[in-house]
Amino acid sequence: MIVAMQEKATEEQIDFVIEAMVEAGVGVHRTTGATQTILAGVGPTANIDLSKFELLPGVLHVHRISSPYKLAGRSFRPEGTVVEFPNGVKLGSTPVVVMAGPCSIENEDQIAETAKRVKAAGGSFLRGGAFKPRSSPYAFQGMGIPGLKLMYEAARQNGLLVVSEVMEISQIEAMLPYVDCFQVGARNMQNFNLLRELGTVRKPVLLKRGIAATIEELLLSSEYIMSGGNYDVVLCERGETATRNTMDISAIPVVKKLSHLPIVGDPSHGTGHRDMVAPMAKAAVAAGADGILVEVHPNADKAASDAMQTLYLDQFEKLMGELRVIAEAVGRTL
Amino acid sequence: MIVAMQEKATEEQIDFVIEAMVEAGVGVHRTTGATQTILAGVGPTANIDLSKFELLPGVLHVHRISSPYKLAGRSFRPEGTVVEFPNGVKLGSTPVVVMAGPCSIENEDQIAETAKRVKAAGGSFLRGGAFKPRSSPYAFQGMGIPGLKLMYEAARQNGLLVVSEVMEISQIEAMLPYVDCFQVGARNMQNFNLLRELGTVRKPVLLKRGIAATIEELLLSSEYIMSGGNYDVVLCERGETATRNTMDISAIPVVKKLSHLPIVGDPSHGTGHRDMVAPMAKAAVAAGADGILVEVHPNADKAASDAMQTLYLDQFEKLMGELRVIAEAVGRTL
Amino acid sequence: MIVAMQEKATEEQIDFVIEAMVEAGVGVHRTTGATQTILAGVGPTANIDLSKFELLPGVLHVHRISSPYKLAGRSFRPEGTVVEFPNGVKLGSTPVVVMAGPCSIENEDQIAETAKRVKAAGGSFLRGGAFKPRSSPYAFQGMGIPGLKLMYEAARQNGLLVVSEVMEISQIEAMLPYVDCFQVGARNMQNFNLLRELGTVRKPVLLKRGIAATIEELLLSSEYIMSGGNYDVVLCERGETATRNTMDISAIPVVKKLSHLPIVGDPSHGTGHRDMVAPMAKAAVAAGADGILVEVHPNADKAASDAMQTLYLDQFEKLMGELRVIAEAVGRTL
Amino acid sequence: MIVAMQEKATEEQIDFVIEAMVEAGVGVHRTTGATQTILAGVGPTANIDLSKFELLPGVLHVHRISSPYKLAGRSFRPEGTVVEFPNGVKLGSTPVVVMAGPCSIENEDQIAETAKRVKAAGGSFLRGGAFKPRSSPYAFQGMGIPGLKLMYEAARQNGLLVVSEVMEISQIEAMLPYVDCFQVGARNMQNFNLLRELGTVRKPVLLKRGIAATIEELLLSSEYIMSGGNYDVVLCERGETATRNTMDISAIPVVKKLSHLPIVGDPSHGTGHRDMVAPMAKAAVAAGADGILVEVHPNADKAASDAMQTLYLDQFEKLMGELRVIAEAVGRTL
Repeated sequence: MIVAMQEKATEEQIDFVIEAMVEAGVGVHRTTGATQTILAGVGPTANIDLSKFELLPGVLHVHRISSPYKLAGRSFRPEGTVVEFPNGVKLGSTPVVVMAGPCSIENEDQIAETAKRVKAAGGSFLRGGAFKPRSSPYAFQGMGIPGLKLMYEAARQNGLLVVSEVMEISQIEAMLPYVDCFQVGARNMQNFNLLRELGTVRKPVLLKRGIAATIEELLLSSEYIMSGGNYDVVLCERGETATRNTMDISAIPVVKKLSHLPIVGDPSHGTGHRDMVAPMAKAAVAAGADGILVEVHPNADKAASDAMQTLYLDQFEKLMGELRVIAEAVGRTL
Repeated sequence: MIVAMQEKATEEQIDFVIEAMVEAGVGVHRTTGATQTILAGVGPTANIDLSKFELLPGVLHVHRISSPYKLAGRSFRPEGTVVEFPNGVKLGSTPVVVMAGPCSIENEDQIAETAKRVKAAGGSFLRGGAFKPRSSPYAFQGMGIPGLKLMYEAARQNGLLVVSEVMEISQIEAMLPYVDCFQVGARNMQNFNLLRELGTVRKPVLLKRGIAATIEELLLSSEYIMSGGNYDVVLCERGETATRNTMDISAIPVVKKLSHLPIVGDPSHGTGHRDMVAPMAKAAVAAGADGILVEVHPNADKAASDAMQTLYLDQFEKLMGELRVIAEAVGRTL
Repeated sequence: MIVAMQEKATEEQIDFVIEAMVEAGVGVHRTTGATQTILAGVGPTANIDLSKFELLPGVLHVHRISSPYKLAGRSFRPEGTVVEFPNGVKLGSTPVVVMAGPCSIENEDQIAETAKRVKAAGGSFLRGGAFKPRSSPYAFQGMGIPGLKLMYEAARQNGLLVVSEVMEISQIEAMLPYVDCFQVGARNMQNFNLLRELGTVRKPVLLKRGIAATIEELLLSSEYIMSGGNYDVVLCERGETATRNTMDISAIPVVKKLSHLPIVGDPSHGTGHRDMVAPMAKAAVAAGADGILVEVHPNADKAASDAMQTLYLDQFEKLMGELRVIAEAVGRTL
Repeated sequence: MIVAMQEKATEEQIDFVIEAMVEAGVGVHRTTGATQTILAGVGPTANIDLSKFELLPGVLHVHRISSPYKLAGRSFRPEGTVVEFPNGVKLGSTPVVVMAGPCSIENEDQIAETAKRVKAAGGSFLRGGAFKPRSSPYAFQGMGIPGLKLMYEAARQNGLLVVSEVMEISQIEAMLPYVDCFQVGARNMQNFNLLRELGTVRKPVLLKRGIAATIEELLLSSEYIMSGGNYDVVLCERGETATRNTMDISAIPVVKKLSHLPIVGDPSHGTGHRDMVAPMAKAAVAAGADGILVEVHPNADKAASDAMQTLYLDQFEKLMGELRVIAEAVGRTL
């Protein structure tokens, strides 16, 4: 940490700040300039609330030098995390992993047909919501565990893995037998009790970036899961703002630089419009995403939720062909 | 709802849209212009996912005419909601209600002294966190229920009410005997399971606007609580964005126009800096806020959390004097 | 246009609104529902300030149905605009056009070497600033016209076209002999006097999206140029916000849907970091961009401005190879 | 400036950075910690592009300690700037200064009646646009200099000062005889050529914060004017974002802390809705604004531009009475 003193700071004020820094457990090196004194604190500062120092008399600014996350940082695992699933699928390795399925699980036919087609097109995961977070209490809220079982069976019959959203601590245990990966939605990115609980589970977690959340906040939220012992976290970019649905493709290279965790893109929620899903999925793979999460439905216009951003299965199959070429163009496979 | 057709829409396409509208339960009136056809749908549309219509062939735009919330809308209670507490304090009436206390409950001395001074200065509520949502898993996480009991006793000895944050469904029952008002934090504004559960409780809920949440999303979240039968919801503006802490004072008159619910301002989280708390508290009252939620601490610089934005008790007392004059200048009391 | 009346609107209020609409030159069709009346206005509304109608007594909302831009809209030229340059280069056609060069023109050697390498790598345009808009008055402000002449000569010796930023009406005439395309920077996107003047010029204009500007504002600004008679406008996405430099890749498919104008991406300003330029350039081409504007410099670390986001020529050559594969993967060439 | 080296930085890399800093004219003090080396640079850094150092091998982060603006900073004039006008009106002193008038000057009657009423209600400035920056080229563009003369005469007959927007360098000379204060609109906040030219003028400049501009960018823009020798700059907060019109009241105390320049609030553009102008004007004064800029019109609903956010003169008179009480409540007059 660096404490820059005001130009007019007195010797007394400077001494007081040095004492406070030593008390907080950091070694201090002082630089006295013509007009300004600077104090460099060396030592473990991740647990220190640096903002307190900004309030001390004579202090101009306090800068944190080291990043506030430890386990999620790239330096923790410079080679990158590869999350391996029971059937051998690896996320964070050369193949780009595709997760596809309806927004909501609706019935057996819907999910069975989707599973068959997703597998045939080269997908690895079946996705689908059993519990749905909806802005309005009057909207469809999901089929719950019975729906999840339907999806699990359809996935297994086709050799697919299952990813589905968990909204509440109490749902974790009930969902555990039927999912290969828990999904934490954007609205729960800072539901810290839920994250902490998922840190004790031994299944991977796909963590979506919250609405308007910074990348640092996303990485700190992954730190909640990892500090509980669950290191199999997959990050997901899904569009930065509520109102404009601007999918932040640049988050992909930024996360890859800052963290060792794999990152996938969600062009369905990232755009909100069916005809923008394909260009943004291609952009995500071109920018280095480790996977794609996409909403598909046999009868997309009649989907119980998110109809506007859901692809028909034909459109999905066409997209897979295009993504394969892009993946190869950037040294990946699909 | 209004469906505007594309200039080139065919008669078949128009008929198909009309059928879909009728099927959804709305009556249709058609306007055929020289270049464009417009379909007006009349009837109950709050439960209809209008976005589906945007996908139909030939459709240009779909507009929702009526607002998607019912119970939170101003027209539901044109005269405005007044939330009354057991000791007679009313929120949403002429007096501006002040809620003050530390970010976190730390120990008996801290909370006892704070309670005495808050009461003496004219406050009505003691606030303080027993459970703390922190971005980093390494930061102080709160004292839990034992802390809450300390706050409850200090409040009652001084004739104050208690407001404290609930983060998890499982905490509701444990907190119930010790709070007069549950607070839902910005990070949980769209934790719909929690909101739904609070709808079944018979205590008021203070609902904070989420980071970057729109006012419509805030009102829809209040609708989750109200649709469960709990109509005593108090809204709270606390700064729109994570990175800039821009407290959106304009949300106060906007909410007052759209909704009958009372709204309070939180200048501590809304600004993040101690020296901006007073001007923004005054601005909030000048703009029509029904109350103020403010962080105070006997030894603010040593506060376990949020030190930077916490007022010393002396500063709080000075602020109360200033707020009183502003409140009177806008026809309120304090 | 659609005017939705309030539920309690009186017959008198409705009649008053109808009269006002007729006065404004639109035909009115009335739909009377059980609870609400809706007035549909048909006719030319692009010049009407619809917000006035929102103020009339009894009015709930006013919706614009048709878009406020005419010449820039996709329907004006459904087949898309192709901007053709004197040497036969076409922007908006199958080949992805690459514009590269330093942020600022600094001296003859710099620009000569850059020109040679850009051409060899397959670029079509040499870019470089003669006049520089800098946030601080103390930063380097550019070489002016002498610098532009250097760039023009270097470009012509290598068969390249020239694009350079114009900041002031008074610079247009002086720059005219030395540029093939005028560039309007993000800070001048709403400098309407400058845009209007460029509408009278017979050279193409590359118009950058302003900081935080909506796509509608970008298209309205292009309308200023086009309404003066200059239809050769190329749009440029360069990152939506000042503070975060989030390059909005999704603007590319959105603009292609709404407008017939070509759009290029600027991954240098769009990211601000050298190591993010390549992934975002690839993402832009994958999403359908018609071209790429990129900052390169023989000695990038010593560049007089924008050093941090400028590629070395080696890096640029490598990127061109990668972009070529992506371009082919999406049915384009480079 | 502070350069934090990476944990793995070699001695060679550190020496290279030290040399680069010395070359740039700053003295260097080195702090070697157990895991990390920190280099503190002391000396004049306002003209140095610090971002270059971030690119040097082994560098983790570079922090600027001193602010990039000099003349606009609070420390340049700790007592605060008071801008004095010919008739003795002072901006930045105890009285809150009110500037009112129509968005656009339309005709003699409109401006004459407005002037009389603004003066009677206690206003000091008549405002009104002669040149209008409009998003659409099809909207009303203003009366130009003839309109400005009308406003000047009406103002002088009533003892009012004149403030009006300048959009182009070429307009400065023509406007000079008829304005007491030039206004630079949000869209031109970074039109640096215009700012530089206004630095050579000997009349005060009211500089509006640009759409989505940070406060640092606003202060740097004021630095352009001041570095030309014109120190009479008045800042204006007018709402941060294009789409939401969120007037950032917190900018007022922030600017007062960072800068000595006076700041006024514009609740008309800051909100965009007539019924929000009064609460936000009150909030701005309560938060410490030095003045208020507000749109009024004798026949507000028929105003040629900005009708929706323009007050009737009766409403303005009522607001003035309310503002007077608020001003006194915060130790000011009006």
